[in-house]
Amino acid sequence: MIIVMERTATQKQLEKILERIEKFGLEPHVIVGVARTVVGIVGDKNGLEPDSFAGLPGVEQAVPIMAPYKLASRDAKQEDTLVKVGDVLIGGDKLSFIAGPCAIESKEQISETAHAVKASGANMLRGGAFKPRTSPYSFQGLGEKGLAYLAEAGRKAGLPTVSEVIEPNDVDIVSRYVDVLQIGARNMQNFALLRKVGRLEMPILLKRGLSATVEEWLMAAEYIMSEGNYQVILCERGIRTYETATRNTLDVAAVALARQLTHLPVIADPSHATGKADLVGPAGCAAIAAGAQGLMVEVHPDPNLALSDGPQSLTPQEFDKMVKQVLRVADAVKQNNLEHDHRPDFNHS
Amino acid sequence: MIIVMERTATQKQLEKILERIEKFGLEPHVIVGVARTVVGIVGDKNGLEPDSFAGLPGVEQAVPIMAPYKLASRDAKQEDTLVKVGDVLIGGDKLSFIAGPCAIESKEQISETAHAVKASGANMLRGGAFKPRTSPYSFQGLGEKGLAYLAEAGRKAGLPTVSEVIEPNDVDIVSRYVDVLQIGARNMQNFALLRKVGRLEMPILLKRGLSATVEEWLMAAEYIMSEGNYQVILCERGIRTYETATRNTLDVAAVALARQLTHLPVIADPSHATGKADLVGPAGCAAIAAGAQGLMVEVHPDPNLALSDGPQSLTPQEFDKMVKQVLRVADAVKQNNLEHDHRPDFNHS
Amino acid sequence: MIIVMERTATQKQLEKILERIEKFGLEPHVIVGVARTVVGIVGDKNGLEPDSFAGLPGVEQAVPIMAPYKLASRDAKQEDTLVKVGDVLIGGDKLSFIAGPCAIESKEQISETAHAVKASGANMLRGGAFKPRTSPYSFQGLGEKGLAYLAEAGRKAGLPTVSEVIEPNDVDIVSRYVDVLQIGARNMQNFALLRKVGRLEMPILLKRGLSATVEEWLMAAEYIMSEGNYQVILCERGIRTYETATRNTLDVAAVALARQLTHLPVIADPSHATGKADLVGPAGCAAIAAGAQGLMVEVHPDPNLALSDGPQSLTPQEFDKMVKQVLRVADAVKQNNLEHDHRPDFNHS
Amino acid sequence: MIIVMERTATQKQLEKILERIEKFGLEPHVIVGVARTVVGIVGDKNGLEPDSFAGLPGVEQAVPIMAPYKLASRDAKQEDTLVKVGDVLIGGDKLSFIAGPCAIESKEQISETAHAVKASGANMLRGGAFKPRTSPYSFQGLGEKGLAYLAEAGRKAGLPTVSEVIEPNDVDIVSRYVDVLQIGARNMQNFALLRKVGRLEMPILLKRGLSATVEEWLMAAEYIMSEGNYQVILCERGIRTYETATRNTLDVAAVALARQLTHLPVIADPSHATGKADLVGPAGCAAIAAGAQGLMVEVHPDPNLALSDGPQSLTPQEFDKMVKQVLRVADAVKQNNLEHDHRPDFNHS
Repeated sequence: MIIVMERTATQKQLEKILERIEKFGLEPHVIVGVARTVVGIVGDKNGLEPDSFAGLPGVEQAVPIMAPYKLASRDAKQEDTLVKVGDVLIGGDKLSFIAGPCAIESKEQISETAHAVKASGANMLRGGAFKPRTSPYSFQGLGEKGLAYLAEAGRKAGLPTVSEVIEPNDVDIVSRYVDVLQIGARNMQNFALLRKVGRLEMPILLKRGLSATVEEWLMAAEYIMSEGNYQVILCERGIRTYETATRNTLDVAAVALARQLTHLPVIADPSHATGKADLVGPAGCAAIAAGAQGLMVEVHPDPNLALSDGPQSLTPQEFDKMVKQVLRVADAVKQNNLEHDHRPDFNHS
Repeated sequence: MIIVMERTATQKQLEKILERIEKFGLEPHVIVGVARTVVGIVGDKNGLEPDSFAGLPGVEQAVPIMAPYKLASRDAKQEDTLVKVGDVLIGGDKLSFIAGPCAIESKEQISETAHAVKASGANMLRGGAFKPRTSPYSFQGLGEKGLAYLAEAGRKAGLPTVSEVIEPNDVDIVSRYVDVLQIGARNMQNFALLRKVGRLEMPILLKRGLSATVEEWLMAAEYIMSEGNYQVILCERGIRTYETATRNTLDVAAVALARQLTHLPVIADPSHATGKADLVGPAGCAAIAAGAQGLMVEVHPDPNLALSDGPQSLTPQEFDKMVKQVLRVADAVKQNNLEHDHRPDFNHS
Repeated sequence: MIIVMERTATQKQLEKILERIEKFGLEPHVIVGVARTVVGIVGDKNGLEPDSFAGLPGVEQAVPIMAPYKLASRDAKQEDTLVKVGDVLIGGDKLSFIAGPCAIESKEQISETAHAVKASGANMLRGGAFKPRTSPYSFQGLGEKGLAYLAEAGRKAGLPTVSEVIEPNDVDIVSRYVDVLQIGARNMQNFALLRKVGRLEMPILLKRGLSATVEEWLMAAEYIMSEGNYQVILCERGIRTYETATRNTLDVAAVALARQLTHLPVIADPSHATGKADLVGPAGCAAIAAGAQGLMVEVHPDPNLALSDGPQSLTPQEFDKMVKQVLRVADAVKQNNLEHDHRPDFNHS
Repeated sequence: MIIVMERTATQKQLEKILERIEKFGLEPHVIVGVARTVVGIVGDKNGLEPDSFAGLPGVEQAVPIMAPYKLASRDAKQEDTLVKVGDVLIGGDKLSFIAGPCAIESKEQISETAHAVKASGANMLRGGAFKPRTSPYSFQGLGEKGLAYLAEAGRKAGLPTVSEVIEPNDVDIVSRYVDVLQIGARNMQNFALLRKVGRLEMPILLKRGLSATVEEWLMAAEYIMSEGNYQVILCERGIRTYETATRNTLDVAAVALARQLTHLPVIADPSHATGKADLVGPAGCAAIAAGAQGLMVEVHPDPNLALSDGPQSLTPQEFDKMVKQVLRVADAVKQNNLEHDHRPDFNHS
């Protein structure tokens, strides 16, 4: 950390800072400049935050120089992490396609979808049973019955399953039925939930919060990892901006940046990111081109009759076409890596 | 709801829409214009959302014409709701001042703060025992021990208490110690938590989410109310924008707007909104001038030694001065209401 | 337009609205519902805005149902517009690569860059001579001398040129030297400048404003077109969001959406969008995958010595590698169009 | 400036940095820490930007420690600047009320408004003659004829006048008619325009850009001042955020912060900030409570018939009521300053 003193800071204020630094067992380095005095604290100390200095009298700013996440960082682990789900390796050479309806509505709906997306190349099945809805009057999902339908549909189609869990008390029941637990965007900083799933031994798919920075997203992964569960898959799903023409704004540079900063797999959800079926294809291709290692796509046998998220759901036919195109894009960006050398600008391995 | 058909929509597509509307037991009104056809659905139907039409073929947009919240709306209840906490009436003639440290650190710290803020005119004591922290390595609060300190300090100083609860499983324990449960910004859409506190018979202080619209904020209140608990206090605490010079952006117009849309009390938290002690006073005055019925302010005996949020905490002396100024501002805006008539532009009753 | 009356609107207020509509020579359609009355104005009337009704007493909202841009819309022209610059066709089958330094610094620098990017496949040369800088104390560009260097370098390398013009008075001089005039993000709503270049007979590259919606961007194009100049190229360059890890947030869905809404060519600038050289490649590939018809990339012989935007500039070697990858991506998304039929979800070509 | 080297930076990379610093005539201070090396450049050098180092190999970040604006800063001038317009002193003890219609529509309209707002206590008259409109098809203002109406109305009512200038070529004509030139939000970074008005000897009212940071806003003032014109009035008018319930988001903390950072007068425009007449009063009071030294308010004799911005215009009666309330608020916050001492938290002098 670097502490920049105010132009008008007194010698006494400076001494109080130095005292505080030493209290933490660290060594301060003082540089007296023409206009300002600067104090460097170069030793590494877990949990010591710039905020704990920024408020002291005489301090203008306190600047961190180390990323606040440790276990999630490429500094901690250079090589890409592979998360194994059944026979699928997320983060590896092959793209992951997680597809299915926003909400599980019936046995037939999820089963029909499972077979269709499997035929198109999906290697995982998604479906919501506990839905976080903005309105208490909207359809909230089928609950455990939905999970049972999902598990059965996945088993019959030969697809591992993923479903969202929205509170710590549901973790046991959801984890009994599915292969991957999803933490939704609204719960990215539901720390009790993060800790709870951090104590499981199963993969966690962690969506980026609606207005979370990349750093906060990686800190949320760190919460899970700090409890012992290292099987975390990150999923970019669009952020909230002033633009209203799309549901959210897909942040493809965040995908590329996360690939640089962390060894965890990074995928994208173009359905929630755009909110419009006819933008899902282009957005999905874009995410893959930026380095995403998989996609999560909403597919419904008849989007017009979907109980939720119909407008952003693809038909199985549209999904089929999309997969083909996405695979070609993945291939296009991958070829480059053979020639790749010094700068990490195209690191979609 | 109004459904605007695409310019190229076919008669068959239109008929499918009409059929769907009638399936919901509603009556469609068709207007055929030169360029477009428009379908009005004017009957009121709880839970029917524009989204359920926006995706149908031939539909360009579906526009809601009723607010999605019912119980929280001024349509449901014209007069202001008063929330009673001990002897304090939040939402009434007297401003509410909720003050105290970000985190309870020790018996002495909370007790000293309680007496100081009481002397300055605070009528409620705040203090965090279960802290939602971005980093798993940061101080997470004293837990139940902290709650006991808070309760004792409040009792001795004659101040009701408020503390945050961050997960459903903590609701029982926190509600045993405090008079008001706080739902923090990060949990504004933690629906399991909202439902759980909705089944209590005690006041809930609901902070606006970091990137929540006013409508989503009121929908979160609706979640609590739909379970039977009508004692909800809304708290604006700054939203996330591109501006980095302040921690968040205090949205005073949202305060004024919420006062128009809902009968629930609306207060503001200028400490989190600005993140800087020397902006808390101006921001607090501004919120009151915009119609807020109270303030929640972080006060610490020695902000420089605070374990969290030191930079935005006031000293008791600063708080004392602020209260005096805020009371004068409240008085200044209240005088107007005597002359107030038709337009609800100065409705800070 | 659709006008939704307030629940409490009086008959007299409604009549005043109907009168106003008829004053504009239009025919109102009234639907009286259980809770609200709605008035439809279905005739098309240029320049009649919802805002001119939203303020009338008794009006709750006024909702537009037609896009406010006409000439730029796919409604006005179905097929893609091709903009011809020398031998280059922007918007056609072949991708456009516009490359060069942020600022022209010397004859040697721009000339060396021109030859390098030409060799890598660029078909247009960029370079700033009049620079819009946040600080009045920063390097403001070489002015006319710079333009002369640019023109010469372009001519020798066989590349048409593009440079930014930042005020109406510079239009004459800049247009004398270059083949395409660029309107920068900060000037997207500099209407005097838009009108001025709208009276020229040369291509205009119009960047999206820092916080412009897609609709405002197309309205800015409409300004140029309404003066008679239809040769407008749109360029997405990242929008301003709360995320600080990247300079801006590249909005790839806006690229895809703009391709649907307008017939004008759409390209992207991954350099300004990300601000970091090692994100330019992934972001550029993403933009192309989303449907962009070209890229504008900052290339500098020695980014470390660049007078501006060094951190986001590629070396010629990096650019060379990027072009190869981008071409493969373009190829990957284009193949799909052969099979493309009903839904416009993959309309890149 | 402080330069933080990457963990993996080589000795050679460090040396290249030191060389570059010395080339600029400055002295580097190296601190070698356990994990990183940090280089401090403490001497003050106008125009040397962090960006010129951030891109060098081995550099992780470059952090500025001085504000980039000089003339606008409180460091350059401690005491508040007073801008004199006729008999009005903006920034002094008395609040400034600038009122009038969005657009000048006729001699009668502006004249009637002038007399009405004068009677309510306004001390300056506003009215737009050259309007920046999002659509080329919207009413663009009366031009010079409008300016003549404005000047006459102001003279007769005894009010100095302010009107917007939207391009350098209009500066001469607009400055001939009015007392204060307004630079609108869309032109805050129209640097050619800023420079042009910087060479005048008349007051400039500079609105904050739609998505400008406080720092960029002060840099825009610096542009004007760097040309010799120190009579700059800053005007906060709401920023663009994700919230759509209001037109923009009034940033009251930016008002308070700007009052700390600069000696220039700071006022606010609650009309554009909120976009809704019934929010203008509360927002105006809030801005004053936060430290604004005046307000700019849209007033129209009959908002329902206004050619632009009707929904956010007050009637003269509403304005009259608002002025009374705002004055009481100003009085309420001013009293505090008598007791004000060390911390600049309530500096609304």
